[in-house]
Amino acid sequence: MTTQATVTTDAEIDALIGLARAAEPVLAASDPARRARLLEGLADALDAARDDLVPLAAAETGLSRNRLVGEVARTSGQLRMFARVVLEGSMFEAVLDDADDSVAPPRPDVRRMLRPLGPVVVFAASNFPFAFSVLGGDTASALAAGCPVVVKAHPGHPGLSAATAAVATAVVREQGWPAGTFAVVQGTDAGVRVLSAPEVKAAGFTGSVAGGRALEQVAQGRPEPIPFYGELGSTNPVVVTPAAVAERGPEIAAGFVGSFTLGAGQFCTKPGVLLLPVGHGLEAEIENAVSAAPAAPLLTPSIFAAFGAGLATRSEHAGTRLLATSAATAPDDGRSVTPTVLALSVSTFLADLELLGEECFGPVSLVVEYDSVDELRQVVDALPGSLVASVHLATEDADWVGALLEDLAARTGRLVVNGWPTGVAVTWAMQHGGPHPVTTSSLHTSVGATAQRRWLRPVAYQGVPEQHLPPALQSANPWRVPRRVNGVLTPAPVTGS
Amino acid sequence: MTTQATVTTDAEIDALIGLARAAEPVLAASDPARRARLLEGLADALDAARDDLVPLAAAETGLSRNRLVGEVARTSGQLRMFARVVLEGSMFEAVLDDADDSVAPPRPDVRRMLRPLGPVVVFAASNFPFAFSVLGGDTASALAAGCPVVVKAHPGHPGLSAATAAVATAVVREQGWPAGTFAVVQGTDAGVRVLSAPEVKAAGFTGSVAGGRALEQVAQGRPEPIPFYGELGSTNPVVVTPAAVAERGPEIAAGFVGSFTLGAGQFCTKPGVLLLPVGHGLEAEIENAVSAAPAAPLLTPSIFAAFGAGLATRSEHAGTRLLATSAATAPDDGRSVTPTVLALSVSTFLADLELLGEECFGPVSLVVEYDSVDELRQVVDALPGSLVASVHLATEDADWVGALLEDLAARTGRLVVNGWPTGVAVTWAMQHGGPHPVTTSSLHTSVGATAQRRWLRPVAYQGVPEQHLPPALQSANPWRVPRRVNGVLTPAPVTGS
Repeated sequence: MTTQATVTTDAEIDALIGLARAAEPVLAASDPARRARLLEGLADALDAARDDLVPLAAAETGLSRNRLVGEVARTSGQLRMFARVVLEGSMFEAVLDDADDSVAPPRPDVRRMLRPLGPVVVFAASNFPFAFSVLGGDTASALAAGCPVVVKAHPGHPGLSAATAAVATAVVREQGWPAGTFAVVQGTDAGVRVLSAPEVKAAGFTGSVAGGRALEQVAQGRPEPIPFYGELGSTNPVVVTPAAVAERGPEIAAGFVGSFTLGAGQFCTKPGVLLLPVGHGLEAEIENAVSAAPAAPLLTPSIFAAFGAGLATRSEHAGTRLLATSAATAPDDGRSVTPTVLALSVSTFLADLELLGEECFGPVSLVVEYDSVDELRQVVDALPGSLVASVHLATEDADWVGALLEDLAARTGRLVVNGWPTGVAVTWAMQHGGPHPVTTSSLHTSVGATAQRRWLRPVAYQGVPEQHLPPALQSANPWRVPRRVNGVLTPAPVTGS
Repeated sequence: MTTQATVTTDAEIDALIGLARAAEPVLAASDPARRARLLEGLADALDAARDDLVPLAAAETGLSRNRLVGEVARTSGQLRMFARVVLEGSMFEAVLDDADDSVAPPRPDVRRMLRPLGPVVVFAASNFPFAFSVLGGDTASALAAGCPVVVKAHPGHPGLSAATAAVATAVVREQGWPAGTFAVVQGTDAGVRVLSAPEVKAAGFTGSVAGGRALEQVAQGRPEPIPFYGELGSTNPVVVTPAAVAERGPEIAAGFVGSFTLGAGQFCTKPGVLLLPVGHGLEAEIENAVSAAPAAPLLTPSIFAAFGAGLATRSEHAGTRLLATSAATAPDDGRSVTPTVLALSVSTFLADLELLGEECFGPVSLVVEYDSVDELRQVVDALPGSLVASVHLATEDADWVGALLEDLAARTGRLVVNGWPTGVAVTWAMQHGGPHPVTTSSLHTSVGATAQRRWLRPVAYQGVPEQHLPPALQSANPWRVPRRVNGVLTPAPVTGS
């Protein structure tokens, strides 16, 4: 029942939830090697199915074959990274404190580790049909944590979702995992039903502000509220200093256009605002680059409609002027658009920050022109939270950039210098999530090795006999995980020792 | 203005918030040694003021001098533990990934650490006038994290709160920290005003379900919602197996009475439900121990009133019978009470779980009698989340206890075997917080070395030049913190190396 690109019925959902609940103890008890094998098996199967899946994805999303081939590699790489994270073992955060009768009151034997929350629901995104979808980062990190996963497929690519689910389900079956380890449901009501099920203990979401806030309300309004990790819209400001303009303005202009038009502007990390000094003189460079940019289809008709409305509001705004538009003509297919850059002053931007500071999904970006360092600092101070904030500096730049970087770091989850925000490396150090309003929890990330922390909670075991302790906490350390012992970080024992 | 035991005015609050905001960058930038010195200075000053503070506390709370002297030691010990945690440096969770041009796409230099959220508000508890109050665990962990703290004093001990604030403020001043590093406000409206201030970025709370839920709504309803870490009521079930009754029933009965009457039953970890097998034969032991227990004053008149109502509801419940009551007579002072134990069947308990499974703050506990292992497993399955769950086992016990412990671990933040839930060791491994409804986030703890994680959020720095990186992420590692470098845990460099 998980392989149909049709709306999942209530009875099917309830059966899937029951299976997920039944799978919970098996996943929780699975040792790192076995859990890593599942993640690696999913990665291998995804790579093997690439040539079947990419055409499905291309047909449903309008994204290019090259882009999608790259995204499959990123997605399988992400699954393999989580396999390494599980095997490395720090994610269990095992801590052992020995009993101490010499202190008053006597200190008991206490051991602590992170335990999986139970079945979780993952709401897939439209814009990454692989990397933030059925076998994307939320699924990979939840399986790494030992949580059964029910994915709510995105309606933008239902056929691909069903086909990817079939690939995953085959791996689950072949490796002998319980049937409830992984499932996909289709349909808006299906997502709400899964999110409302008492057996489901957390939710991940990547998508629009409206959709995310509505689902967050469902999660918080349950008899038992559950964590809802929503990654919503972000404008991702980019600051260019006067010295950087002087040093390499044209290169920055070209990089800007490349970044905001990438994937037809449909990345959550798209630079939505570029802060340039008044008199930057880069109009021609931006115009030329945008002019040469082709038309491209948006992911869904509803994204197309929203982009049209958002672009119109910004274009017709009294304080903005058209800086650049593409020479290409978009086919009249109800999907395709061309890129646009609008320019405006800081005072216009700040006067209407609620509208102009909001994400507009698609290939549009605003050049906001600041007339002084003070005005730049003022606009940075007013910016809402962002997933990523970027700064272009000259090799030798002014002293005030230190304070500027500090101000930006206080408002973002990722600070980039001399780079563009699009492109999120899937590494140990990555952070994808930032202060309100861009994510519902700025304390967590949905990309990178620590993403599995969202699906785990700590439990302390006090005076529990060895045979009843989880393996990660047993004195013999059979899972060979790094641990903190009486306050001291202790590396994992080497195999065979 | 922070040393008056009078309601803080709106103007005073706004000034304090402004000072806290101004202190934010200073605390965030403070190196571990300096931050540890603040925590140690507060610990030393608290210990030095003990003989002035304990009489104030005793007069306001009715708690005994011995108990309060012990609590001061626990509180200063907790401050010193957080000093060690800051100095150890793992709390910064520094992660460095080098750039790698050999992969496609090339991987940038990304470094990640936890940063303080900014000013936080701490709502002090009634029942630990030191350890969960002005200089308690929330304050200590937030200062360790580098966050300025505004404490909302508990109305049960306003004079002690003002006096403790004066002790703390003197240390802050003597050590040259900004005035906004630490402040105390008094008054219910004052707490809501601080919680609503845009500059305040998180809240800690220990107290009643009603109070906690109301404040949680305030935190979630702000234009910028903030994390609200509430530790609310918990029943903390204790299971005794038939084999444990046979092995040492009388000892368990005495331990139970000692635990539920400790501090006049006003611990959040009080065992509110004791699950004994039908025919346990411990009635006389429980009766004798309770009979010998003295009357004791409750913390406040409102706790006295709530205890009276809660006890009446439970006593008058058709399914409960009086098992034991004290021979002492409580003085008619509007504060003092004596302990009570009621007995009931599993079926009665489950039929009215919403009432009988709820915490009743004060010296009352329920003995719920199970007639079979199946019935025991059934009641454990139905239990709401708890801060701590305990099991008394025999030296050689039945095979089913493994599954029982696993079921309990899934419902609690701390699992205790052959011990009592009261008494929370302040150690690296401690967990104080559990699944709904006992805490508003089961992913965090309010006691133990990881409590400071609540006040920190991750930020990634991509391509940021050395001189603009926070010290914990600079290649030279001037803060000497343990770090993960290219996936490998790397201990802190030894001083002088």
